[in-house]
Amino acid sequence: MRTLKLTIAYDGSAYVGWQRQDNGRSIQGELEAALGDIEGRPVSVVGAGRTDAGVHALAQVASLRIAHAIDAPALLRALNAKLPADIRVLRTAVVPREFHARYAAAAKTYRYYMSTGAVAQPFSLRYAWHVPFSLDVDAMRDAARQLSGRHDFAAFQATGSDVETTVRTIRSMAVARQSAWAPWDGEPTASTSIVAVEVTADGFLRHMVRAIVGTLVEVGRGRREVGDMVPIIASRRRARAGATAPARGLYLVRVVYPDP
Amino acid sequence: MRTLKLTIAYDGSAYVGWQRQDNGRSIQGELEAALGDIEGRPVSVVGAGRTDAGVHALAQVASLRIAHAIDAPALLRALNAKLPADIRVLRTAVVPREFHARYAAAAKTYRYYMSTGAVAQPFSLRYAWHVPFSLDVDAMRDAARQLSGRHDFAAFQATGSDVETTVRTIRSMAVARQSAWAPWDGEPTASTSIVAVEVTADGFLRHMVRAIVGTLVEVGRGRREVGDMVPIIASRRRARAGATAPARGLYLVRVVYPDP
Repeated sequence: MRTLKLTIAYDGSAYVGWQRQDNGRSIQGELEAALGDIEGRPVSVVGAGRTDAGVHALAQVASLRIAHAIDAPALLRALNAKLPADIRVLRTAVVPREFHARYAAAAKTYRYYMSTGAVAQPFSLRYAWHVPFSLDVDAMRDAARQLSGRHDFAAFQATGSDVETTVRTIRSMAVARQSAWAPWDGEPTASTSIVAVEVTADGFLRHMVRAIVGTLVEVGRGRREVGDMVPIIASRRRARAGATAPARGLYLVRVVYPDP
Repeated sequence: MRTLKLTIAYDGSAYVGWQRQDNGRSIQGELEAALGDIEGRPVSVVGAGRTDAGVHALAQVASLRIAHAIDAPALLRALNAKLPADIRVLRTAVVPREFHARYAAAAKTYRYYMSTGAVAQPFSLRYAWHVPFSLDVDAMRDAARQLSGRHDFAAFQATGSDVETTVRTIRSMAVARQSAWAPWDGEPTASTSIVAVEVTADGFLRHMVRAIVGTLVEVGRGRREVGDMVPIIASRRRARAGATAPARGLYLVRVVYPDP
């Protein structure tokens, strides 16, 4: 048995999320089906991040163990031939047998895209959250700074979650207005642009990035003060933070592992 | 009765094309249904370009006549409230009563996007043609130059078309490698990039841009010489030119009208 590491991009629009579920197609389920075909018996796949329904990945990482002697480049081609076109394996590698995509991850980066302007572009419906008002990106950046570092993020966790600890460390956070949008959206204008929020942390609570983005948007609209961030964290109450931003704007961008 | 001009963006993926047809939903049909609701009786909409199934528009132009007294900004809001989210009205304007979106157009611009690299990005499935080899953009540009100007483009017309004349004038043509792709595609790398072909002409034959792009790609792959363009035009035979590129990479970018 060898352990393999897969790097995967997917459009999450058509899936119930990363995790295998009874109520629909999942990314994990599609990968396991394709790998099971190759191996001739069931294969379990572990993902670094359990993305929700509609959430996308630019470079999710997964680990699995197979007995089949197929080499890594041939496995990449075989998987992409079997998988639906909205899931693509970008890289395959043989790794030390104990490698575990989730437990070994030192940090993950998520990015969130919002489109602004009065009318939503039809091409970003599945790929960004349309926020039909202008956003004060400087204020959002100041608020983001308050969230960086080691904190108890209970106020930014989906209600009903049950985890051992809600303390996480945000290593870096960036809020930026992007001039580059999809080429099919034409030239960015004063009235339309993309605002991106990128968060790198040692771990994430359920809906944490989406709750942070929902809160930052309220700051960007002027409905909440930059100074509100510290009392929100201290409250540990989900109701004190902003609404959860929709899944479609969220992307798992990369997973960092310690050097071997 | 007043004449109105609409500027419209749409994602053509879910439609049979611009034109009303019995076999599915069309952009024209959706606009006419929404306008009919407002006007209280059937309204006919004329489009500047009859885009095929799967072809997109960044700024299609349409004209129509209504008796309803609704002003242009209110019409924009009412239409966007009724239309599906993948069709958006960007601008509305009252124009001289004789304005006709198709007959009055002096020129139209179409753009075609190809993505390169070994593995297709899942996010561009509906929005670009994935060409899994590298393209010699300089050679494609040289070939495009041979096509500029006034020519008989019969060799680049869908077989079975029946039009009075196949002579058209290409006013400008550009082939470019773009570094800016959708933000969710990550940073462009040496192995993946976007190649865009933009064509402005006084008019287009059926499938003309897609036949031109299919031919230019053969030049870009080194399967055809730059010098082949002149004999292809002279032949007036569709079989001499390259294959028709798929609809999903094509965008109607703008429609130019003479100054009133």
